[in-house]
Amino acid sequence: MIGDEILSGRTQDKNVAQLAAWLNGEGIRLAEVRIVPDDTARIVEAVNALRAGHDYLFTTGGIGPTHDDITVDAIAAAFEVPVVIHPEARAILQDYYRDRPGGLNPARLRMARVPEGAELIRNPSSGAPGVKIGNVYILAGVPHIAASMMEGLTGRLEGGRPMVSVTVGARAVESEVAELLRETEAAHPGVAIGSYPFFKDGTYGANFVVRSEDGELARSTGEELSHRLREAGYEPVEGGI
Amino acid sequence: MIGDEILSGRTQDKNVAQLAAWLNGEGIRLAEVRIVPDDTARIVEAVNALRAGHDYLFTTGGIGPTHDDITVDAIAAAFEVPVVIHPEARAILQDYYRDRPGGLNPARLRMARVPEGAELIRNPSSGAPGVKIGNVYILAGVPHIAASMMEGLTGRLEGGRPMVSVTVGARAVESEVAELLRETEAAHPGVAIGSYPFFKDGTYGANFVVRSEDGELARSTGEELSHRLREAGYEPVEGGI
Repeated sequence: MIGDEILSGRTQDKNVAQLAAWLNGEGIRLAEVRIVPDDTARIVEAVNALRAGHDYLFTTGGIGPTHDDITVDAIAAAFEVPVVIHPEARAILQDYYRDRPGGLNPARLRMARVPEGAELIRNPSSGAPGVKIGNVYILAGVPHIAASMMEGLTGRLEGGRPMVSVTVGARAVESEVAELLRETEAAHPGVAIGSYPFFKDGTYGANFVVRSEDGELARSTGEELSHRLREAGYEPVEGGI
Repeated sequence: MIGDEILSGRTQDKNVAQLAAWLNGEGIRLAEVRIVPDDTARIVEAVNALRAGHDYLFTTGGIGPTHDDITVDAIAAAFEVPVVIHPEARAILQDYYRDRPGGLNPARLRMARVPEGAELIRNPSSGAPGVKIGNVYILAGVPHIAASMMEGLTGRLEGGRPMVSVTVGARAVESEVAELLRETEAAHPGVAIGSYPFFKDGTYGANFVVRSEDGELARSTGEELSHRLREAGYEPVEGGI
């Protein structure tokens, strides 16, 4: 994620959660997120570290028409290739801006610039496409536009099995059931149980999220957890509180 | 930030924005964020990279009483020191849980564990304190508890001048004013102008955020930007739309 607006606290990020949820449906695990400023050297460093260490890298932000949109230039620098105008992107923008005031002015034409050798990612919600180079997917920062680019990529990435989550909630203070959780997780290799406490309506509680790539295992472990919680005197709530 | 719950998309992060806003008030610029999973090796790698590259590192998440709370152990591993029970943290927890059901059980005592040599960060909103070791500040993941630990640190970090932001909004398509923005920024060294487009109430618009450590410069550049927007036929809205 690229953007001073997130690092300054001005904008509440929404892209991490929506990217994570979409990737999960594609059977791809989000392994790490970095948020870096609108600074070429910092973007290059992060992109090169992450594209080398992971199957896919998705960036959001910095691909608009203004002077502070430097993502394409920085990623071209990371790949050590020049920036070129993509003819198909130019055609898309020409079409999109034909009947709009101002037409395809130089600022808008910036959005047809891609690192040499890149392909386009279709964007049904506004003119400017996303960009793919190597294993790097360059998406918009505006959440609904980013979402529409994800939609365009759905089913086109190589993923494994989606992670299945089963949530069980209880009006339990998590520190009272910590041992029970640890035991349940230890008894089921291939399952991870997360504990997420809350304070709601004047009482403490927690949601316990059982995750596994094996859906049947996630469900049976969730049932066992419910059973253990009931035995310990709590009222488990399937689906969470 | 440490937590599978963010990377799985289950939980919408709130800590980046509140940490950024608080740091800005302290005159400290948030330079980078990484979100890593509940995995010791990944936490160690991120902590060592970030504490070496920056003045301060703040972590959130993974310091509760359950088996999936591994932040303290991972940061001790990053510093290559053992984990010890901090006597003052134990006393705080003993006091906090004295009249609560279950008392200071082993799970809760986990929250008194710190990397050897660490100091405590006071936490007015629940018993368990935060932890400081070297330039690393270990905060809670639950946003209101993290906020209360930040409160406890206010005025105690060495910062520079807070960044001053002046926002000017306009019902302008950003690609129509891109050149005007670029010129305004170029004419005022020490100022960065960000452009954040939106679609609201059926029309396009954008907020332009002028940032500088020099408050007077930020304000005068904001005024000049308003003037230029008005000359170009837009109605600038001070404070943004």
